[in-house]
Amino acid sequence: MAEAWVNSRRSPELPESDQGVDLHLELARAGNRRSALMAALREAIRSGRLAPGTRLPPYRSLAMDLGIARNTVAAAYAELVEEGWLTARQGSGTRVAQRAVPAPDERTGRPYRPAPRRVSHDLQPSSPNAAAFPRTAWIASTRRALSAAPNDAFGVGDPRGRLELRTALAEYLTRARGVRTEPDRIIICSGFAHGLRLMASVLDGPIAMEAYGLGFYRDILHGAGQHTIPLTVDSHGAHTGELPATDARAVLLTPAHQYPTGGPLHPERRAAVIDWARSTGSVILEDDYDGEFRYDRQPVGALQGLDPDRVVYLGSVSKSLSPALRVGWMALPARLIDNVLSAKGAREMQCSAIDQLTLADFFTSGAYDRHLRRTRITYRRRRAQLVHTLATRAPHIRVSGIAAGLHAVLELPSGTEDSTLHAARRQGLALDGLTPYRHPAGPMPTRDGLVIGYGTPADHAFTPALEALCLALPDPPETRK
Amino acid sequence: MAEAWVNSRRSPELPESDQGVDLHLELARAGNRRSALMAALREAIRSGRLAPGTRLPPYRSLAMDLGIARNTVAAAYAELVEEGWLTARQGSGTRVAQRAVPAPDERTGRPYRPAPRRVSHDLQPSSPNAAAFPRTAWIASTRRALSAAPNDAFGVGDPRGRLELRTALAEYLTRARGVRTEPDRIIICSGFAHGLRLMASVLDGPIAMEAYGLGFYRDILHGAGQHTIPLTVDSHGAHTGELPATDARAVLLTPAHQYPTGGPLHPERRAAVIDWARSTGSVILEDDYDGEFRYDRQPVGALQGLDPDRVVYLGSVSKSLSPALRVGWMALPARLIDNVLSAKGAREMQCSAIDQLTLADFFTSGAYDRHLRRTRITYRRRRAQLVHTLATRAPHIRVSGIAAGLHAVLELPSGTEDSTLHAARRQGLALDGLTPYRHPAGPMPTRDGLVIGYGTPADHAFTPALEALCLALPDPPETRK
Repeated sequence: MAEAWVNSRRSPELPESDQGVDLHLELARAGNRRSALMAALREAIRSGRLAPGTRLPPYRSLAMDLGIARNTVAAAYAELVEEGWLTARQGSGTRVAQRAVPAPDERTGRPYRPAPRRVSHDLQPSSPNAAAFPRTAWIASTRRALSAAPNDAFGVGDPRGRLELRTALAEYLTRARGVRTEPDRIIICSGFAHGLRLMASVLDGPIAMEAYGLGFYRDILHGAGQHTIPLTVDSHGAHTGELPATDARAVLLTPAHQYPTGGPLHPERRAAVIDWARSTGSVILEDDYDGEFRYDRQPVGALQGLDPDRVVYLGSVSKSLSPALRVGWMALPARLIDNVLSAKGAREMQCSAIDQLTLADFFTSGAYDRHLRRTRITYRRRRAQLVHTLATRAPHIRVSGIAAGLHAVLELPSGTEDSTLHAARRQGLALDGLTPYRHPAGPMPTRDGLVIGYGTPADHAFTPALEALCLALPDPPETRK
Repeated sequence: MAEAWVNSRRSPELPESDQGVDLHLELARAGNRRSALMAALREAIRSGRLAPGTRLPPYRSLAMDLGIARNTVAAAYAELVEEGWLTARQGSGTRVAQRAVPAPDERTGRPYRPAPRRVSHDLQPSSPNAAAFPRTAWIASTRRALSAAPNDAFGVGDPRGRLELRTALAEYLTRARGVRTEPDRIIICSGFAHGLRLMASVLDGPIAMEAYGLGFYRDILHGAGQHTIPLTVDSHGAHTGELPATDARAVLLTPAHQYPTGGPLHPERRAAVIDWARSTGSVILEDDYDGEFRYDRQPVGALQGLDPDRVVYLGSVSKSLSPALRVGWMALPARLIDNVLSAKGAREMQCSAIDQLTLADFFTSGAYDRHLRRTRITYRRRRAQLVHTLATRAPHIRVSGIAAGLHAVLELPSGTEDSTLHAARRQGLALDGLTPYRHPAGPMPTRDGLVIGYGTPADHAFTPALEALCLALPDPPETRK
């Protein structure tokens, strides 16, 4: 009989609820190892020996203790999460559910019950590491900013955004991203999506965009009544040379790092899109979503620096700090400002003035630069670990798009994306398939792949997440048949 | 020759820039007193005797020193503000402009220059007293909330809003407003307007609304493609008895205090609208914009408490704390929650998680109750001062709508609204006329009036604002003509 003392990390610095537990687990001698482990865990929970909220040990240590395979432990945890015995939340590990296995009839008649979270590992490319949010520095900036703010900061908000923030941004964007702007040409918004929605409502269309990109952004443009035209993308970014043959009046690009598939826009293509915009009077929307995270060489300056009168530069703190903050910005050509302000409305309706003031202090105090330096090191290390792990464990999977940013694209053998995503879900692993990023109007073929957000997990959760990823990936072609 | 030593308030507690100035002003002996004062002030600024940023003395004291009428001083200040020599900002008094009278050619060729602010006195009903924002308590709540928050607070936001805030709100709204709800039935939004936009996108129409109300809210409903039906209002609120004769499927009401004209919805009309909603399967939208500010008697509980399955309760911190915060909430019938969440999107795109967490602490720590108690006393005193001042200085003007809230309606003689607003602008006084609040589709006649936000100015600016108001009001009928 395999047995183990379940003894996850104990630390005097952790609150009681985060302490591990000492528990003797016995596995039935015969039969499927996963089923046996699940039965032992269920019994321990039912009997109360594993109390609600208790954190379970990592796969690795339990697998070692019990002498079984690590993926067997992972699979048992994932199934118990689905059954409701365990919960798995990013940053909190796998724990015994607060109310393990509610009877089905207790669930009915309730006014609203959110779908249970079944995510043990989160590699979705939607967020930086939430555990790395610089809480102490943010609190200090809040204190300074609110103490110094004039009274009118707490009145009805100016739709351009707080001058303190626009001034700090003009300085920062010029210095760090080569943007050519000034405070009067910046308008604050509640994130890239808000900025895009505003631009979609004031620009003439159709709007060209990259053939691979966020479906959510296509939805925003189409929701505003815009027709979109997809441009081919490759490892040098979008084929901007296709623009003159279209009737596009604007183009949305990710020049720093094509999202999600590739690298920075090639210098010739940068020149070509500027030429096109000048000769046709068109507008370029530059989504600089991760221009601050570049690893292999110096960051590529913003396209906007080439022609501030043709390019609308859009950025936000969603990748650099947190998507929970809801602050973004646009650096605009002068002639567009009045129209964008009209579209935004007579007063600020979305973006918190307190966050704006705090972020302004965060920039001017140097805390933003310090935070970026720190997180860049972490993400660079994770990127290396991802590449190394895949090279070792899944050498048949090609990794691309990792020159910058917080995500990678894993190219999958044709026809395996759905089954890989299904296998990932079985591991409690959340990630994106590449197919939904494809513009449905072509011109590019469907490619099977995964989009991996390697910035997303907390530090301690990154290795287990990679482990789950390896378990979910398809076998090499020669072993499949 | 009239002359005065300009010597505004000096105080050791004020920074140097806020200190008054000692200055000898001489007015030409002959001619218009306003023009003479303007010429003297222009000369003092041009010569540098009045330095940029210098705060000018209050009307009252300068008028007394120079032996001229107070409104002459007010008019001279207002014209110099318009000319660019002076600036007048709420909370900061009238000051010499930082860059007085830029040459016209310096203004051209600039990419964007916001319209100069010409408001010396702000009685617009759009904001509470911005100077009363509880900065210290908010900083303390931020520190506690960010220190205690789980890591996932800094990841992609749940569109329902943070559970910490929804839990605090369910407790508060039950206790303070008689709302019957629970955290799972609350959805956070970025203010009342956001909530109304979401409801307009999920409800069947047409939507009935009060015949006097914010034009901005009509615009939101019409912008969402809804047809609206105006209901007569009087001092007992909306005539809800008109609803059965309409084909409305929903109604938007301000039951605590009809905005802007009147009092709380009469109990019989409350019962009638609930009966109508039940018998027709319709939905009531309750805008509880100022339910917390009631002076004459106990607050009227929320209409929602009568039937939580028929009423959507909407509130925000815009009046109680600050419109700069962008946090609001909806307490919803269970059957509407999924639709509202679908309309809101898969993630939180507007409302800052940090503000949500801080506000949750602000509620649970008791800071919100303390702030309301304090501001209620101030606003009650202002209301009394407004009523007293008007009774003394303009007894022919009737004041209504002051049982609660932060605003009053001044009824004007027919045909005098435009000229009164014009006179107010000449005083540098910002306020609203009543006419734009009228639903253009009737059924009520146009009424001349003013909507006065007596909560808006900082404490020291309230008396001068009332003074400017009295100067702008039309004379009694017998002295006109």
